[in-house]
Amino acid sequence: MSLRDLATRTRGAARQAGAQAGAERSAALHRMAEALDGHRERILDANRADVRDAEAAVAAQAMSQALADRLKLSSKRLDQLIASLHGLAKTPDPLGRTVHHIELAPGLVRREVTAPLGVLLIIFESRPDALVQIAALGVRSGNGLLLKGGSEAARSNTVLHEVLREALAPLPPDLLTLVHTREDIAALLQLDDLVDLVIPRGSDALVRHVQAHTKIPVLGHADGICHVYVDAQADPAKAHAIVLDSKTNYPAACNAMETLLVHRAHVGGLADELIQALQTADVLVHRAPEAPFPDLPEASSLAHEYGDRACTIAIVDDVAAAMAHIHRYGSGHTDTVVTEDPQVAATWQAGLDSACVFVNASTRFADGFRFGLGAEVGISTGRIHARGPVGVEGLLTTRHLVTGHGDTVAAFSTGERTFTHLKIGG
Amino acid sequence: MSLRDLATRTRGAARQAGAQAGAERSAALHRMAEALDGHRERILDANRADVRDAEAAVAAQAMSQALADRLKLSSKRLDQLIASLHGLAKTPDPLGRTVHHIELAPGLVRREVTAPLGVLLIIFESRPDALVQIAALGVRSGNGLLLKGGSEAARSNTVLHEVLREALAPLPPDLLTLVHTREDIAALLQLDDLVDLVIPRGSDALVRHVQAHTKIPVLGHADGICHVYVDAQADPAKAHAIVLDSKTNYPAACNAMETLLVHRAHVGGLADELIQALQTADVLVHRAPEAPFPDLPEASSLAHEYGDRACTIAIVDDVAAAMAHIHRYGSGHTDTVVTEDPQVAATWQAGLDSACVFVNASTRFADGFRFGLGAEVGISTGRIHARGPVGVEGLLTTRHLVTGHGDTVAAFSTGERTFTHLKIGG
Repeated sequence: MSLRDLATRTRGAARQAGAQAGAERSAALHRMAEALDGHRERILDANRADVRDAEAAVAAQAMSQALADRLKLSSKRLDQLIASLHGLAKTPDPLGRTVHHIELAPGLVRREVTAPLGVLLIIFESRPDALVQIAALGVRSGNGLLLKGGSEAARSNTVLHEVLREALAPLPPDLLTLVHTREDIAALLQLDDLVDLVIPRGSDALVRHVQAHTKIPVLGHADGICHVYVDAQADPAKAHAIVLDSKTNYPAACNAMETLLVHRAHVGGLADELIQALQTADVLVHRAPEAPFPDLPEASSLAHEYGDRACTIAIVDDVAAAMAHIHRYGSGHTDTVVTEDPQVAATWQAGLDSACVFVNASTRFADGFRFGLGAEVGISTGRIHARGPVGVEGLLTTRHLVTGHGDTVAAFSTGERTFTHLKIGG
Repeated sequence: MSLRDLATRTRGAARQAGAQAGAERSAALHRMAEALDGHRERILDANRADVRDAEAAVAAQAMSQALADRLKLSSKRLDQLIASLHGLAKTPDPLGRTVHHIELAPGLVRREVTAPLGVLLIIFESRPDALVQIAALGVRSGNGLLLKGGSEAARSNTVLHEVLREALAPLPPDLLTLVHTREDIAALLQLDDLVDLVIPRGSDALVRHVQAHTKIPVLGHADGICHVYVDAQADPAKAHAIVLDSKTNYPAACNAMETLLVHRAHVGGLADELIQALQTADVLVHRAPEAPFPDLPEASSLAHEYGDRACTIAIVDDVAAAMAHIHRYGSGHTDTVVTEDPQVAATWQAGLDSACVFVNASTRFADGFRFGLGAEVGISTGRIHARGPVGVEGLLTTRHLVTGHGDTVAAFSTGERTFTHLKIGG
């Protein structure tokens, strides 16, 4: 079958699934959970084969140990996935929720309701449990999924896909479609009339590659150049806690601090203490070209994402200078100010043009779970459709349902009838 | 100045304007209205020169009369524009509205608030009053605008732009930037890192051209293949009213009916009466290949947008067949069913995958003003970001404002603190 036919079938299946009552999609999620339980050994066998090959690749230095580690499924991990599917089945149906409800004129009503986006192409690396989580979100939101996993997890993904797909009925099996090769992806990225959104979950390089090769909207972020600005009126204890947590809690994360901006008043005081604290925590601190710390190595660029135990420190004159620095060098992801001055906090939150604009909190809170979104689909630094950590709402659009009694526009043009536009709800 | 510099300045201006209080942007709108009033003669002089050239072009058969007619500004039209600017100045500020408000943990709160998209490239044809309306929406929503009007309105647009731009202060003048040539547009369409959204307001050909030449998201619709389905249980009077209004109220509109689907039960009855009524109204009715009306000319395609006093009739067996036809041949714009059967209406509204899904109402209601959205930015048949008629909300995104007291993620990892995720509002 051509990939165009494949995507067309997935769209047809998505239309069927989206039109089902929420209870039907909940029942499918329960069946998917039970199927994972029932095929536990088959799944773990396939995964063991993937892991065995990966360990051989690690031994041959053809794969990193970290990548091989992320491959592993355990019976305990399956239990967690099964529990999360049952949990998702019990959450309220995200579809058909009324967003706006308005009387256009007597007897003529418009309701805007949530609806599935349509067909999503999701590219994920390594972890086979991602397939289960993504498939569950797709079923919950009535979207059709074209799934491409990492080749190192091919056996695990194939079995998981088979098991979940069989459990869908009476929902159409084509709702979950697994594609296998890079060539398939290249071809699917051309189908902007059939695929509504691409979600690359993986390295920056993957996101950048996808963005460069498609006209389909991409939900994701290639960069996470996050800043902490320590204001003149910062509480030193809070500054220490936030700077260290933002950099060292998980240095490889996209929401980790890359650049520390410190108010000039702290040079010779808090600024030096923060450098020392970071160095004590094994962080290699670089300096901006102008920063008065001659002992530090100079940063190669002020727009650098280390993704590691390293960062840049720059000195700024005030909150306006800090914001100008971030607008120039940042990636619009997450930036936080440490300040006790309510005026500075207000200026920061009114004017900083980033997805996540924090006051006195670690940048690491920028995350779907911590934000209270339930599952996280991804973090978007784009401004269209979804911004910041994205939950299941990012997989939805709306439809406008108008119900009348034979109403014509002509009757309004002639003045026979008049629009009322009365808000009913939503 | 390079177009990259131009767009960068517009983005900077937008950041400034978006950070201003709503009252500042309202005041600018009032000043813009007053400036139009104060420069009335200068504006009308420039417009008269454009119209004179256009009339010459019409005489030389180099321009259509319709295009020349759309160019004309009158003192009365200026009055309307002035009134609409004062009106918009009084509407609630769309920025900073709380969408979600949630306690993440005691003392740690997230507010998701509306924010400007950033920089919009708006390409409009002919009507110079569009420049005023678009500029007003941009100021209201804190977005920076790169504006390109039709070359036939160059003098009118230049004066209007000058007048409005001067009235912005203390808002930065670069908020409204006029670009002049097709080459400028071609260059701006490449700047997907600086321009957030393109809105082409004009012909299908313009929309298609823009979509084919940019990676920036495009808000618009190239096709409007709208359907009316007359069900077995249709009320004949409503069917007549809706079919005629949908086709003849404004045949060139994107929300006009292009294909009439009729239930087989009406062949030899209502179907024939509807054909006759359309023909009486000067509509050229084509038949689908299989439709049992041998006297009608055959349609060249079932996915054809006539955009004129013409349409196609096809016979279907039931509501499922009508929906399958629309999913196959439609453009996902607006489709309406005429039925007295609540089951058919429910099936239609649950399962039809179009932006606007109507019951017993003319397709012509798919319009921002009629929908009660205030100003209309455009109609989107895309599914990402905005769908259907789009008002000022389509020019917004959100930002996540988190406020804490020195909170770290580490304290939650260790179990010292727990997320509460309590909804506060929004």
